[in-house]
Amino acid sequence: MNTKQIVLASRPKGLPQLTDFRFEHTGLPEVKKGEVLLKPLYYSVDPYLRNRMNDGKLYSQSFKIDHPVESNALAKVIESSSDYFNPGETVIGILPWREMCVVSEKGLQKVDATHDPVSNYLSVWGMTGLTAYIGLMHICKPLAGETVVISAAAGAVGLVVGQIAKILGCRVIGITGSDEKVKLLVSNYGFDEAINYKTTTYMSNAIGTVCTDGVDIYFDNVGGEISDAVINNLNSGARIAICGQISLYNSTTLPVGPRIQETLLTKSAMMRGFQVNNFKSEFPDAIQYLTKWVKDGQLKFTETTFQGFAQLPAAFLGLFNGENTGKMIVKI
Amino acid sequence: MNTKQIVLASRPKGLPQLTDFRFEHTGLPEVKKGEVLLKPLYYSVDPYLRNRMNDGKLYSQSFKIDHPVESNALAKVIESSSDYFNPGETVIGILPWREMCVVSEKGLQKVDATHDPVSNYLSVWGMTGLTAYIGLMHICKPLAGETVVISAAAGAVGLVVGQIAKILGCRVIGITGSDEKVKLLVSNYGFDEAINYKTTTYMSNAIGTVCTDGVDIYFDNVGGEISDAVINNLNSGARIAICGQISLYNSTTLPVGPRIQETLLTKSAMMRGFQVNNFKSEFPDAIQYLTKWVKDGQLKFTETTFQGFAQLPAAFLGLFNGENTGKMIVKI
Repeated sequence: MNTKQIVLASRPKGLPQLTDFRFEHTGLPEVKKGEVLLKPLYYSVDPYLRNRMNDGKLYSQSFKIDHPVESNALAKVIESSSDYFNPGETVIGILPWREMCVVSEKGLQKVDATHDPVSNYLSVWGMTGLTAYIGLMHICKPLAGETVVISAAAGAVGLVVGQIAKILGCRVIGITGSDEKVKLLVSNYGFDEAINYKTTTYMSNAIGTVCTDGVDIYFDNVGGEISDAVINNLNSGARIAICGQISLYNSTTLPVGPRIQETLLTKSAMMRGFQVNNFKSEFPDAIQYLTKWVKDGQLKFTETTFQGFAQLPAAFLGLFNGENTGKMIVKI
Repeated sequence: MNTKQIVLASRPKGLPQLTDFRFEHTGLPEVKKGEVLLKPLYYSVDPYLRNRMNDGKLYSQSFKIDHPVESNALAKVIESSSDYFNPGETVIGILPWREMCVVSEKGLQKVDATHDPVSNYLSVWGMTGLTAYIGLMHICKPLAGETVVISAAAGAVGLVVGQIAKILGCRVIGITGSDEKVKLLVSNYGFDEAINYKTTTYMSNAIGTVCTDGVDIYFDNVGGEISDAVINNLNSGARIAICGQISLYNSTTLPVGPRIQETLLTKSAMMRGFQVNNFKSEFPDAIQYLTKWVKDGQLKFTETTFQGFAQLPAAFLGLFNGENTGKMIVKI
């Protein structure tokens, strides 16, 4: 039996190109004990995959050249030699970019396929929601009345962070890349203010103007000059969660910028990078709150969906052009 | 009644010069209700004073031009209109650089003058010891077996941090500025290794060589390129306490360097600036441990003493040339 797959053809230099990926046919192995045959339904594409395309220095799990890219996905079980999964069930896990795949039962989890839209398991119910919740609650620890600034605010994680911060009684400022997204953040998602960094010359002043009481919390998805501008406006005791650095992922030289330690010192501020999988013990709590807020209508979500397996590379590239609002999903 | 004082004559441009200070005579006001007349015995000079000599942007309490510099000091009460302090008692507080001064009782604390040397109240028993303890225990939270790197390791705070980390069972690496200090750290203060950054070309490699298991904790007193080199060797879950940035205090341009956020992200690392006075509730605990360790002979300390009121500016300048081992003190 044959299937199509998408492999990493070359390590991207700077911004990834479609030519860094290659489509090919591959054989499907037989389904051995403890394995399942899956048909992926939805893939999540995420900025962090860019790092896995580099030589493995920073992230341990570097993709191999000529091997399929992998990302979080929802899939239907077609055939099973596992004691835990039955044909017809829907599962979530990190899957290779293949139209059909045989994988170990390990790392797969069942999801409720009647939930509509089921793709939400890749976004607000999944890693996106958990990342937003853990980063905000466990790294930033917001108090009501504090000012929270979020970069890539209309992105998958940013959208959830902003709404949770509003639920907690914070003043919430989003930084985003188009006037349309500015409008969306304020009118649809309850942000107090939003700034289009692409049309703003003096970001530091612009942030100072809307953050009249300074910045208590910065949820950073982008890094670079946007972060410099936010850090210029920190309050004493500020907390910064580093969730992503998308503005730097395609950098071909070592990114340099103002040294921030003296600001952290004089402001008694804290900055912490985090990876959500290190907080698994907090997941049940997080899921309980996320579920409640979605049910109550306090937490809304949106996805940008590309259609078809062949669109996986284009959807991934779209992340770096701000083509997504909310989670970027590929429906197979 | 007249006395001598040292005022800030001009805001230093880069490295402070003796000409930034001016000696002058001034009158002593009468001692009003709630005030005391003090004769300073010992002054502490500290790197952070450099920031107070700048225009007040970062630190709120900028020194005023033509007004006396102030620093932590021990003094004898000569005359008192306070209900709390009596002539003959020894007190500690932030005092102007004056041979005699009249100050409010607020902010003064009595010390036990029989303690020998009493100057230790300015170092291991005082802010220095507390800063080391709070920064290490409450910011870095070391575990036995972890590797701790300390910059300005032979300085006042660094010396205490290293010894506490050894008491806790950590592997301790000091970075310092002379071969003499390297030897001192290892033979007198129990550091496992020490590196002379002035004679080491590739600091990042040198740190990697002695930190065979990577760096779990970095206690940063200096900033700049030394910090870049340490950050290159961070382990996953590393903690960085920013206590000082002495290498940058005299910078006349905005210091730039490698952006560190991506490293903090990939290493799930935390960096936090702190000021010891924000941890007052932890002081009693800290003092109890510091006292015990000194009594047990586990925590040793040294001071570098300049003699005479006129030496205050020179002692302060000496901090930037590494003229001190341990705490820099001026005995009046």
